[in-house]
Amino acid sequence: MERIMKAAATAVAVLLAVAVLVAEAAHHPRGVTSSYRRKLEASEDMPLDADVFAVPPGRNAPQQVHITLGDQAGTAMTVSWVTVEAEGNSTVLYGRAMGRLDHAAEGTTTRYTFYNYTSGFIHHCTLAGLDHATRYYYAVGFGDTVRTFWFTTPPRPGPDASLRLGLIGDLGQTADSNSTLAHYEQHPGDAVLFVGDLSYADKHPFHDSNRWDTWGRFSERSVAYQPWIWTAGNHEVEYAPELGETTAFKPFTHRYPTPYRASGSSEPYWYSVKLGPAHIIVLSSYSAFGKYTPQFKWLEAELQRVDRAVTPWLFISTHVPWYNSNNFHFMEGEPMRVQFEKMAVDARVDAVFAGHVHAYERSHRYSNIKYNITDGRCTPVADRRAPVYVVIGDGGNIEGLADELTWPQPAYSAFREYSFGHAVLDIKNRTHAYYAWYRNHDGNKVTADATWLTNRYHMPNHDDSSVHSNI
Amino acid sequence: MERIMKAAATAVAVLLAVAVLVAEAAHHPRGVTSSYRRKLEASEDMPLDADVFAVPPGRNAPQQVHITLGDQAGTAMTVSWVTVEAEGNSTVLYGRAMGRLDHAAEGTTTRYTFYNYTSGFIHHCTLAGLDHATRYYYAVGFGDTVRTFWFTTPPRPGPDASLRLGLIGDLGQTADSNSTLAHYEQHPGDAVLFVGDLSYADKHPFHDSNRWDTWGRFSERSVAYQPWIWTAGNHEVEYAPELGETTAFKPFTHRYPTPYRASGSSEPYWYSVKLGPAHIIVLSSYSAFGKYTPQFKWLEAELQRVDRAVTPWLFISTHVPWYNSNNFHFMEGEPMRVQFEKMAVDARVDAVFAGHVHAYERSHRYSNIKYNITDGRCTPVADRRAPVYVVIGDGGNIEGLADELTWPQPAYSAFREYSFGHAVLDIKNRTHAYYAWYRNHDGNKVTADATWLTNRYHMPNHDDSSVHSNI
Repeated sequence: MERIMKAAATAVAVLLAVAVLVAEAAHHPRGVTSSYRRKLEASEDMPLDADVFAVPPGRNAPQQVHITLGDQAGTAMTVSWVTVEAEGNSTVLYGRAMGRLDHAAEGTTTRYTFYNYTSGFIHHCTLAGLDHATRYYYAVGFGDTVRTFWFTTPPRPGPDASLRLGLIGDLGQTADSNSTLAHYEQHPGDAVLFVGDLSYADKHPFHDSNRWDTWGRFSERSVAYQPWIWTAGNHEVEYAPELGETTAFKPFTHRYPTPYRASGSSEPYWYSVKLGPAHIIVLSSYSAFGKYTPQFKWLEAELQRVDRAVTPWLFISTHVPWYNSNNFHFMEGEPMRVQFEKMAVDARVDAVFAGHVHAYERSHRYSNIKYNITDGRCTPVADRRAPVYVVIGDGGNIEGLADELTWPQPAYSAFREYSFGHAVLDIKNRTHAYYAWYRNHDGNKVTADATWLTNRYHMPNHDDSSVHSNI
Repeated sequence: MERIMKAAATAVAVLLAVAVLVAEAAHHPRGVTSSYRRKLEASEDMPLDADVFAVPPGRNAPQQVHITLGDQAGTAMTVSWVTVEAEGNSTVLYGRAMGRLDHAAEGTTTRYTFYNYTSGFIHHCTLAGLDHATRYYYAVGFGDTVRTFWFTTPPRPGPDASLRLGLIGDLGQTADSNSTLAHYEQHPGDAVLFVGDLSYADKHPFHDSNRWDTWGRFSERSVAYQPWIWTAGNHEVEYAPELGETTAFKPFTHRYPTPYRASGSSEPYWYSVKLGPAHIIVLSSYSAFGKYTPQFKWLEAELQRVDRAVTPWLFISTHVPWYNSNNFHFMEGEPMRVQFEKMAVDARVDAVFAGHVHAYERSHRYSNIKYNITDGRCTPVADRRAPVYVVIGDGGNIEGLADELTWPQPAYSAFREYSFGHAVLDIKNRTHAYYAWYRNHDGNKVTADATWLTNRYHMPNHDDSSVHSNI
């Protein structure tokens, strides 16, 4: 009898919820499933002799040059590159003018083997004590062939700085990957937040690390000139006991350093950086995140350290999305959502960026944090405190598009489309940021989804004013 | 309007669910919350000069002797012990009679530092090529003080072997811990499945590893004579950046080896062993378990390797429970439940043993695996395919009892009580096992919860015939 009463009470609660749903419906438009359908072509990796993979000329020339932040807040930059021969040293000369490289920094060299592959000499060198928002020129390859590049350090952390942040994920090295990168380069940002899955080398026989080398050469044209902030994806794990390779993340960690120690992290896979007005927290879907684990304890402490008066914009980057509505990888993000969503809502995170699903999706501000196992309160609800969830795993890799949406489109889903592309977040000031997703559209760059985001700390209002074109 | 229709449909679904609930109620008795209340005394660790911590006499005598399986199926045993001085070698002599130790094995020595502590010389030596179900005598400490012990190897994996398996968790080293161990010793099993949290050394200033040494001496009286199968708990993590110690599990892994390689695992925290009729899978709450991680991939493959014709009984051990109803650590197991529960149900796991919550609880066979984010199907339901969930984190440690139950008692909860104790699973044959939980009851051992379990592979019927006394 008690059970019957309880069930009846639940039924009443559900009917009451109708009123709430109707009221909420006024606050944001219905979700849009784009009707645009691109031609689904084969997604092979570009051939090894493609121009974008060309080895730079000159004896033992530095190749695969890439940079990422060398500290938490942008006064250091870590430069990495590969040389084929050992003689290449790890020195970087740098300065404020191309003809005046009046500073020198010494780096380190590493290499690794993976099954039957032996890497070249991988150099990492951190340039410290840089000024913010300043152009630096740098050169690598002394002793053999010298190559010169440049970057601009990010603005000093502060609430009124502006920042243009590229958002790219699951890039790979197909012709589509090349389109995505080319479109981003048409109007590049100050930095790229990369949400995981770089080279897809592990899709080749024996996880052929030569495909890490080609990816490094392919992406150099952007990554040598602006910092990319790395998130580890499943294609970085490379746990391959069948090849005798059981050290997770081996090629990735040897090639792509992250400034994790600067934010008090103990492993390269979770850390934070501050870029002007943004505090960006990178999490690892493929590391332990249970309560009491290093990642959990670090995140708990890190959220306390965020100062929205200095960095009004708070973002999380993680590979597996907490919200999406594609049958590919559906529900895979549930364990981490269950673990971290309430912390993110309580901290008023502005947006969570993820990849993994090879499609594009943006959510309304929804949360699902009331469940206590027995109360049945497990349906996502509109929640102004919640982040916007963006899935940007549409860089264009060898695995192709995730073209099976779930139906009906869930209420939390604002816009979804399975095309390749990238997004840019343009932070204008402490209250407003303009967000836009650019569909590759068979060669041309097309704005297909755009919206203004208002800051969850300084202007936590309803901000769901989507603009869609060409759907 | 569509939303209203949908909500109305949900209301109808809830009302229909009433019929299911009423029908299910006939299948198992209502949950019991024991009314027994023990005196809540202080739970201090026993003083360093307690008899149970005494250093064995003799120059550089081997101490903290303990054994665990040295392979997957019981034809090897790893013997570990500590000597204070370096001269102690790592040799074990062993044989089938006390006076005939006619075999020798050579082990290895390790040590570690943790903040201001330096360990003694920790010896590990695996005796291989043993026969099943055979008594062996072994001696350690040659060169100085020799000490002799014995063990019986587990029965050969096979469906008609019987096995008596002790279940202990969160033991620590208080007077309650001592009672728990003493009660287990009154009628010990063939082996102990330990569900995590051994010494609680980390509760002492600077994670004082001397408390690992005292725990090793305290537990020797059981662990030197029968294999304990280790599960890693949160008190084994010992991630302490404030002390400069950021290598997780450092003292634990140096002291307590596991035979993880024998089951194809790549880390000591997840692995399997076969003990007669039982295939036991140990999982790590504090390692990565997301899809594509080593632990996930190992578990997926391991479940395929289970042969219920040979080992009819399939168990999982993990520190954080997937089901419990205590406010302490409530919901902490949700991420792993979300990740692994469906796999466990599909594999027809007989029982999942966990600790972490310092109380005792046993569940009915329930599952909660239908949820798809938007359908609201997130209420656990009776499910004959599901494991029984046992929380046995009541060994009696320095942190005391978890005495805040959630109300009402959830439908999945069959019996719960916050007293110290231990349990024993007595596998009789391929279809039946008798399970009993023994409350310490202020010094005496009292059977407070008992039930017959029938095998999920050979006899997957309703098996919920609880017997309770002294509640």
